[in-house]
Amino acid sequence: MRSVIDTLDLTVEEIQSLIDTAEDIAHNPQNYAEKCKGKKLATLFFEPSTRTRLSFEAAMLELGGSVIGFSDAGSSSASKGESVADTVKVISCYADVIAMRHPREGAPLVAAHNASIPVINAGDGGHCHPTQTLADLLTIHREKGRLDNLTVGFCGDLKYGRTVHSLIAALSRYTGIKLVLISPEELRVPGYVTKGVINEAGMPYRETESLEDAMPELDVLYMTRIQRERFSDIDEYERLKDSYILTLEKLASAKSDLIVLHPLPRVNEISVKVDDDPRACYFKQVMNGKLMRMALILKLLGAVDEPDSHPIPDGALINEICCHNPACITKVEQELDQVFKPVAPGVYRCIYCESKAKI
Amino acid sequence: MRSVIDTLDLTVEEIQSLIDTAEDIAHNPQNYAEKCKGKKLATLFFEPSTRTRLSFEAAMLELGGSVIGFSDAGSSSASKGESVADTVKVISCYADVIAMRHPREGAPLVAAHNASIPVINAGDGGHCHPTQTLADLLTIHREKGRLDNLTVGFCGDLKYGRTVHSLIAALSRYTGIKLVLISPEELRVPGYVTKGVINEAGMPYRETESLEDAMPELDVLYMTRIQRERFSDIDEYERLKDSYILTLEKLASAKSDLIVLHPLPRVNEISVKVDDDPRACYFKQVMNGKLMRMALILKLLGAVDEPDSHPIPDGALINEICCHNPACITKVEQELDQVFKPVAPGVYRCIYCESKAKI
Amino acid sequence: MRSVIDTLDLTVEEIQSLIDTAEDIAHNPQNYAEKCKGKKLATLFFEPSTRTRLSFEAAMLELGGSVIGFSDAGSSSASKGESVADTVKVISCYADVIAMRHPREGAPLVAAHNASIPVINAGDGGHCHPTQTLADLLTIHREKGRLDNLTVGFCGDLKYGRTVHSLIAALSRYTGIKLVLISPEELRVPGYVTKGVINEAGMPYRETESLEDAMPELDVLYMTRIQRERFSDIDEYERLKDSYILTLEKLASAKSDLIVLHPLPRVNEISVKVDDDPRACYFKQVMNGKLMRMALILKLLGAVDEPDSHPIPDGALINEICCHNPACITKVEQELDQVFKPVAPGVYRCIYCESKAKI
Repeated sequence: MRSVIDTLDLTVEEIQSLIDTAEDIAHNPQNYAEKCKGKKLATLFFEPSTRTRLSFEAAMLELGGSVIGFSDAGSSSASKGESVADTVKVISCYADVIAMRHPREGAPLVAAHNASIPVINAGDGGHCHPTQTLADLLTIHREKGRLDNLTVGFCGDLKYGRTVHSLIAALSRYTGIKLVLISPEELRVPGYVTKGVINEAGMPYRETESLEDAMPELDVLYMTRIQRERFSDIDEYERLKDSYILTLEKLASAKSDLIVLHPLPRVNEISVKVDDDPRACYFKQVMNGKLMRMALILKLLGAVDEPDSHPIPDGALINEICCHNPACITKVEQELDQVFKPVAPGVYRCIYCESKAKI
Repeated sequence: MRSVIDTLDLTVEEIQSLIDTAEDIAHNPQNYAEKCKGKKLATLFFEPSTRTRLSFEAAMLELGGSVIGFSDAGSSSASKGESVADTVKVISCYADVIAMRHPREGAPLVAAHNASIPVINAGDGGHCHPTQTLADLLTIHREKGRLDNLTVGFCGDLKYGRTVHSLIAALSRYTGIKLVLISPEELRVPGYVTKGVINEAGMPYRETESLEDAMPELDVLYMTRIQRERFSDIDEYERLKDSYILTLEKLASAKSDLIVLHPLPRVNEISVKVDDDPRACYFKQVMNGKLMRMALILKLLGAVDEPDSHPIPDGALINEICCHNPACITKVEQELDQVFKPVAPGVYRCIYCESKAKI
Repeated sequence: MRSVIDTLDLTVEEIQSLIDTAEDIAHNPQNYAEKCKGKKLATLFFEPSTRTRLSFEAAMLELGGSVIGFSDAGSSSASKGESVADTVKVISCYADVIAMRHPREGAPLVAAHNASIPVINAGDGGHCHPTQTLADLLTIHREKGRLDNLTVGFCGDLKYGRTVHSLIAALSRYTGIKLVLISPEELRVPGYVTKGVINEAGMPYRETESLEDAMPELDVLYMTRIQRERFSDIDEYERLKDSYILTLEKLASAKSDLIVLHPLPRVNEISVKVDDDPRACYFKQVMNGKLMRMALILKLLGAVDEPDSHPIPDGALINEICCHNPACITKVEQELDQVFKPVAPGVYRCIYCESKAKI
């Protein structure tokens, strides 16, 4: 039984296979309309995320299956203090596959370890959101015809943007990717991404504060929102905010085959007037997210005999050190072992939230 | 692609066709049980309304379709500041038809302008609630056999009652309708309805404070609730409230074929003892609401090639004046044009909330 | 038309028939996959209970039916002051069977009296929760092969535990049942259960404060949680709490074919390490709960012509005395008669909440 907690749980070949399935679904939806007849998806949303939840639900319904679940923790047994492990053992009696959204980092991994049905991470705090990244990859593939040899700009909040880090990691497995990282000084990509992912993969990149400067060379522009709360200096926020808003004027210098992505919801970081430009692909991303969720549900329901993809790794430290990340699921889950995996000589990371151990 | 925002979006002929379909569904439900197989209704309820939501959901399920959605704004992306326009562009990727409830007046029209699927207004603030009016019309038609030549009493809060104004407008297109408007002085039908709708259509009407006085002549009695909050003078409320409660005693002087309607929920404005009287039709209204929603969903899904029924009208003023209604969707929706339509020489109304322009 | 408000609404023979159906569903699910095609279950949850709601929903979906409803009162019309009676009259237009959870004792009986479709009580305050008891009975039957000649221990909060009282009452109709009631002094089974149910049925029982002492003789151990709030003396709570936590150590002296039940959610009253012991049956209970709900839905939908099982009893006092239970539905429901049934000479109980009349 396979679960998908992180995009990197899937090999490049498996991602290509999902893309192929998604494209076939797009062209021949009628061939898939009964594929999951009699199967049930449980959408366990411990925090609200309408877009993601409805995307999963639409995906399952278009496969002929049905849906049960909840849309926020207030109407779940979690409010009675039930552990994630118990919740998914119960849900395993009711459904065939789980999509879980949880504010605690690592909660879906706890779920995968305890459920007897596949678990898909639908977002765990600031940690992972693999089906968003799969939507991004399918959109690039459908629009550009490839996932390699692309200059990809990321713009906005690159420090806290979970979708940004996740897509960079996913792209690091392809060749010929150049990155342009466009952000204010305060919101640059963190060192563990530039050093641990980008340099590790040998991807060329440059950083800039100017979207206009970067625009002409980009094949893909991934926009994100800059939130006022992220700035220690409000004057700095006021000075900068307009320069990271995408307008038709800024798009004027872009390539004619640029594609603009955004994980949504958008507030005002892309002018509504851009929506009608053929380069705006963020609503296509929504459709592609549904298609990739359909492909992933099909894959996992068809592979129930495969071994668990998330065993405790060899050489793990069990209950020797404690995770210090206050958002980690280990802080609240009853009787959960503290498990750290070796990632480099002398370096360990929590298997749930991937925080580095402080030894 | 057609959307229904207001009852008057439908011609008298179209309403008759919906009534015919609804009556056929009532008699031959099995003929409709697979009509919407593979289709999805999205119920986007930005404020709770269980009855209306479940009526739409039951309607879609009885047509063989399925349902996704949310039941209040707290579990929607709106809490993250997403615009109505973006929300429905996203939902257009997930569903085939939208039923939208929104506290902001005009929100469903914004939805109709941006969705690529039909939108049904399931109530927008104090503005419109067309499927309630369709339920009222079907009930009158099924019980009385006609929609003309009727004396119709409206009782209770006629000032703020959205369903009252809407049914009066709908009835104004039929011949031989006489109105009896029964309310306390403070809650009389507003001038824009008496002058703009009733007199315009040449409908005879009289106003009275006494339900007992009006009772004997009525063919239809439409009850509504009087809320204490509506009164500036609480003594006045206490003095009046019992006189607008329908009891078996007050019904004694009514015609034997009177029908009593109420949009529900009722609190205490109709005694529970009236429920068993054959003239009580308010629970039949509930069933009829479901049937009309079935008919309307069928109509809209079958008419996706028809042109948009809500274009910007000729002669509209765009961004020249601002809507002053604090409940209008234009107050909050990002980058939404202010659009006013001419309704009479020198008179303009906001296309979203229909407030008159102050020029 | 039959409704199930209390487990005792079902005869021993009917319960055996439900058990037989549930076991057949477990072995031949495909035979039931279309049994409720075109039927709708309404889950009316006036307070959240995810496990119970999802169990009902999964049950209906596995029978080929569909589901509408709400998961808490905030998104229901109850927040607008609508009565239970009106709500279920409306829902009777939308669905074929109701599962109702309500914080008010007796609300499901009010529903059964007013709905034109069957009502299943999914828990009404501290009063009844019959489908939990049906799950318990099926689990005992499947695991032990019988419902008689068993020594059954109940451990924890036996004073307030609704599931405990209900299962004791259900077991009192079988022969050869011995009870061991394990609790702190403050949380002993109340007198109306020991006198009114246990002694009445002639069941042998003993009370003890020690789980370890009771363990060796038990065939069934029913665990419940002890809540700190139940203790007037916190020191007493601290002194006692660990002795009512089930651990592998305490299990060491148990029979090898003991079965451990728990209504869930568990917080910490059973160590997670016990979960892997073959005697731990609380997650099997979850599966069995779904199976019994399937059997019950099938039974009620197949018996719509049977007479109402909850008529006003002969000799009832109507509006002569008032119920004094502050949690009773009669305290809030509009125009609801106060009805007391005779249960012994000179003794009356409220038909809604079963509180004894104070005359």
